[in-house]
Amino acid sequence: MIFSTVRHALIMSARSVCIVGSGNWGSAIAKIVGNNVKERSEYFKERVPMYMYEEEFNGRKLTEIVNTEHENIKYLPGIKLPENVVAIPNLLEASKDADILIFVLPHQFVKKICNELQGKIKTSAIAVSLIKGFAISEEGIQLISRLISDILSIPCGVLSGANLAGEVASEQFCETTIGSKDKEIGELLKLLFETQYFHCSVVEDTDTVELCGALKNVVAIGAGIVDGMGYGDNTKAAVQRLGLMEMIKFAEVFFQGSKTSTFFQSCGIADLVATCHGGRNRLLGENVVKSTKSLKELEKEILKGQSFQGPLVAKEIYGMLEEKDMLNRFPLFVAIHNICERKMDPKEFVNCLRNHPEHL
Amino acid sequence: MIFSTVRHALIMSARSVCIVGSGNWGSAIAKIVGNNVKERSEYFKERVPMYMYEEEFNGRKLTEIVNTEHENIKYLPGIKLPENVVAIPNLLEASKDADILIFVLPHQFVKKICNELQGKIKTSAIAVSLIKGFAISEEGIQLISRLISDILSIPCGVLSGANLAGEVASEQFCETTIGSKDKEIGELLKLLFETQYFHCSVVEDTDTVELCGALKNVVAIGAGIVDGMGYGDNTKAAVQRLGLMEMIKFAEVFFQGSKTSTFFQSCGIADLVATCHGGRNRLLGENVVKSTKSLKELEKEILKGQSFQGPLVAKEIYGMLEEKDMLNRFPLFVAIHNICERKMDPKEFVNCLRNHPEHL
Repeated sequence: MIFSTVRHALIMSARSVCIVGSGNWGSAIAKIVGNNVKERSEYFKERVPMYMYEEEFNGRKLTEIVNTEHENIKYLPGIKLPENVVAIPNLLEASKDADILIFVLPHQFVKKICNELQGKIKTSAIAVSLIKGFAISEEGIQLISRLISDILSIPCGVLSGANLAGEVASEQFCETTIGSKDKEIGELLKLLFETQYFHCSVVEDTDTVELCGALKNVVAIGAGIVDGMGYGDNTKAAVQRLGLMEMIKFAEVFFQGSKTSTFFQSCGIADLVATCHGGRNRLLGENVVKSTKSLKELEKEILKGQSFQGPLVAKEIYGMLEEKDMLNRFPLFVAIHNICERKMDPKEFVNCLRNHPEHL
Repeated sequence: MIFSTVRHALIMSARSVCIVGSGNWGSAIAKIVGNNVKERSEYFKERVPMYMYEEEFNGRKLTEIVNTEHENIKYLPGIKLPENVVAIPNLLEASKDADILIFVLPHQFVKKICNELQGKIKTSAIAVSLIKGFAISEEGIQLISRLISDILSIPCGVLSGANLAGEVASEQFCETTIGSKDKEIGELLKLLFETQYFHCSVVEDTDTVELCGALKNVVAIGAGIVDGMGYGDNTKAAVQRLGLMEMIKFAEVFFQGSKTSTFFQSCGIADLVATCHGGRNRLLGENVVKSTKSLKELEKEILKGQSFQGPLVAKEIYGMLEEKDMLNRFPLFVAIHNICERKMDPKEFVNCLRNHPEHL
């Protein structure tokens, strides 16, 4: 009811799309969206403003590089972006005409960004979050899409799947999952994102789609830990399975209405498997075992300024589980947090698999 | 009712265990079982006869090598077997006293072996199948455990999980799933197989446990195909997900009573993931793309005399689906069969993912 203007917006003429964020994943998505809006001009306006946090790279402004060379040489080098994607360093200027706001930035920045946008965007706009992680509220963790929706008073869908950014940018076939409680918005988002190499399935169980995207990064650290210790595919498969069982339990306990079938979508098992084999959180897990460096040092060394999402999510989960006295129900999540914080020896990790409550 | 002697057998004194088969997996299991029977002497007799097809290796009989050096230097080199595991080249001699028969041999040999055993084993015996694949009956495919049970008139459980043999033999932690319709037999089998590094969960949905073990090898060929074509983790995750969806559909259509929850056990997603990353059927898929050799030539080259299970299962499934006019419901299985048979260009494989009925 609160969003009664939305349905009207859906049957209006071409919509303006704004991308909020421009890192690795944001740039890969900008390539898709920039091309799709041109091909589907009955639905979308051609110019796609992309909000980009201004920084210098090789002595030049990054927005200037993107707008002249059409390449994000810092975060997605080697991939040409469509020329209708325009990098803009001013958030309000980038978003002021938007009918669709695509949020794709590290989860720790989203609250600040939304606060700045509050009251400054179209009231008929809709949002979609591609962000992995949780926000922290007084009741514990909060879904990012809920946070966006609450602050901006607009509906917010999600998109999450087995989508390592570099592979998507190089047009390797993959699947993804769009979560939208409103079916029409779901179909509109499919039109915006789907390509021959990027297949979108739409489900209504938005919460689970988003949960999977946040939690899989925690499990991936666990996969990296057993990699780092020299274990093979069997042990790693056990980590992935037990990790999935904790993800499902987490959804059951904290998000009523979550459906098991959603875990069979790309956002579920497929993303989990891809991230446990190819993602940077897996790499972090491996390095936590092989070096004695702190998380901060590893971030500086491996990500050159970006941050690992997995340890942040693990910490957020840990805080909530501790408060609710549920640490013993999620031993894998807890162990991964403790290992990242250097409070537990990685050698203990296999014991945690061995004694997992799933085995009782 | 037909197995009323079994329950009695379960409360009798120590049982004699016989292993039928002695390849890579058979030898890894012999190590586990040989050690467990010693530690659990109230349940099992110490001497474990292992039927071994006699062959020469480096000019000596393989049984003789195993019984003097306690190592299967042909199929599991580098791993010491417990001395109470005794290789015997005569099937009937190996099995005549057995209370528990562990079947672990390539699926194409099981019918012949069971026919030889018929009427020659204890009527109170029970069996457990570790075999991956199907038998062919007049009604289409038949589960191997059913075949064993039918020919020998004894109950037959199954064991299947994310258990690449080499890793199990080197004692890397993993999980597995035991399927047994009879709970007491299930618990007895858990006592026989479980170790600190080999965790057994018991379920009653035997059919699904066994189905997973056969079908995952087909999906793994698909994973190898996309590996061979240079795709990354996203595309491979889509193959695994769509493969899993076809496995679930196959169970639904052909094996009523199959439970989705069983796919969350080690025999399901975990084994699928491990096999799609580490198994020899994955390797086959990669080689099918990278060379123009026939399946037979690749078998000779890669497996040195053993056979790939995946293509056999794919062929069996194909035959049945064709007869039942269901080829279009399982396009991934069908494409993998056709690519193995060199009737389809591997380049077409990604189109099959793109147009999969799961996406409709």
